[in-house]
Amino acid sequence: MKLQVALDGPIEHSLAILQVIHPYIDIAEIGTPLIYREGIGAVLQVRQAFPNLTLLADLKIMDAGEEEASIAFTAGCDIVTVLGLAADVTVKGVLAAAQDFSRRMMVDLIQVPDLEVRSRELLEMGCHLLCVHTAYDLQTDDRTPLGDLRCLRRSLPDAPFAVAGGIGMNTIDEVVTLTPKIVVVGAAITGASDPERVAQAIRRRINLDDAIS
Amino acid sequence: MKLQVALDGPIEHSLAILQVIHPYIDIAEIGTPLIYREGIGAVLQVRQAFPNLTLLADLKIMDAGEEEASIAFTAGCDIVTVLGLAADVTVKGVLAAAQDFSRRMMVDLIQVPDLEVRSRELLEMGCHLLCVHTAYDLQTDDRTPLGDLRCLRRSLPDAPFAVAGGIGMNTIDEVVTLTPKIVVVGAAITGASDPERVAQAIRRRINLDDAIS
Repeated sequence: MKLQVALDGPIEHSLAILQVIHPYIDIAEIGTPLIYREGIGAVLQVRQAFPNLTLLADLKIMDAGEEEASIAFTAGCDIVTVLGLAADVTVKGVLAAAQDFSRRMMVDLIQVPDLEVRSRELLEMGCHLLCVHTAYDLQTDDRTPLGDLRCLRRSLPDAPFAVAGGIGMNTIDEVVTLTPKIVVVGAAITGASDPERVAQAIRRRINLDDAIS
Repeated sequence: MKLQVALDGPIEHSLAILQVIHPYIDIAEIGTPLIYREGIGAVLQVRQAFPNLTLLADLKIMDAGEEEASIAFTAGCDIVTVLGLAADVTVKGVLAAAQDFSRRMMVDLIQVPDLEVRSRELLEMGCHLLCVHTAYDLQTDDRTPLGDLRCLRRSLPDAPFAVAGGIGMNTIDEVVTLTPKIVVVGAAITGASDPERVAQAIRRRINLDDAIS
């Protein structure tokens, strides 16, 4: 199980946070707001400072799949995201770019109405990772991505799911029981008063699960 | 009827094209690939060179509506886009940011399954502009946004539609009969051997329609 941290704040803040937390994480996500602010140059800055981190660009591609994914891969990204709501041909374009560059792609299932049907279609296409994601704008105590992931796990026990949306110390125990391939944590780390302490605690929890599974 | 040109190429190329076509257009769209490459700084560059143009940032927002729209408005954008597939609360967040900054927002209807139902919902929320948009990845001779716009016009005769997706000299006559508020043209101008000639011809066609309607 891998730990991905979503960096949505200003680039200087994101680099400062990474300086503290990089020993505990596997994947640094250049979040959508950071891409909007800085463009793909944000990837170059993070790559220069942290040459060994796996970098994901959260482009949430909706169209021009191959062309837009290539922008991220050319800049040195390892993983790029496409929306599950995009047309199949767009998803396949992102997949083709990932194959050309020998990189990976993740499908963000945000707002997908029938998660099981779409997940099966996406896996059939050969998509590498599927992210079960409750929108930030929709997150409440009652609404988390864990219910969706639990349902999907029953029908797709071995699918390579990531999970994102409000995950933190309160939910990590439940998250690991659902065996996602990637756990995405955002504000619970980047907005913490002590980001290192939280990142380390979540890392240990994930390591414990890996050790006993 | 306004003419919007979608700038998707590298920033230098986009500025060079604008230098030639700006007398003929109303709105310069900072396209999604250009945002991915340059970030919102592309808006600042275009604004500095063309202080009077209306600028649209095609962010295709899917989440964190108010926060992400504010990035574009803070940079001086006049109009920002949100996906019609986004949650209502995200669309409303973009709308709230537009109201705070006294700017405008456009909903991109790309991949929306029931265009009439969703358009009515979006108009009810107070959305300023709805863009009927066939994905670049799906465009063929047979598949254009004009069929969708024709259907929508029957049920929503006065709605403020924009139309985008493969529009050029071959289709502009048909487009103007459907009375969109904004006609979006991309590669037909930016990829033309003589962009000025094409921009001028489309401008004249639109002006003629405005003069006789």
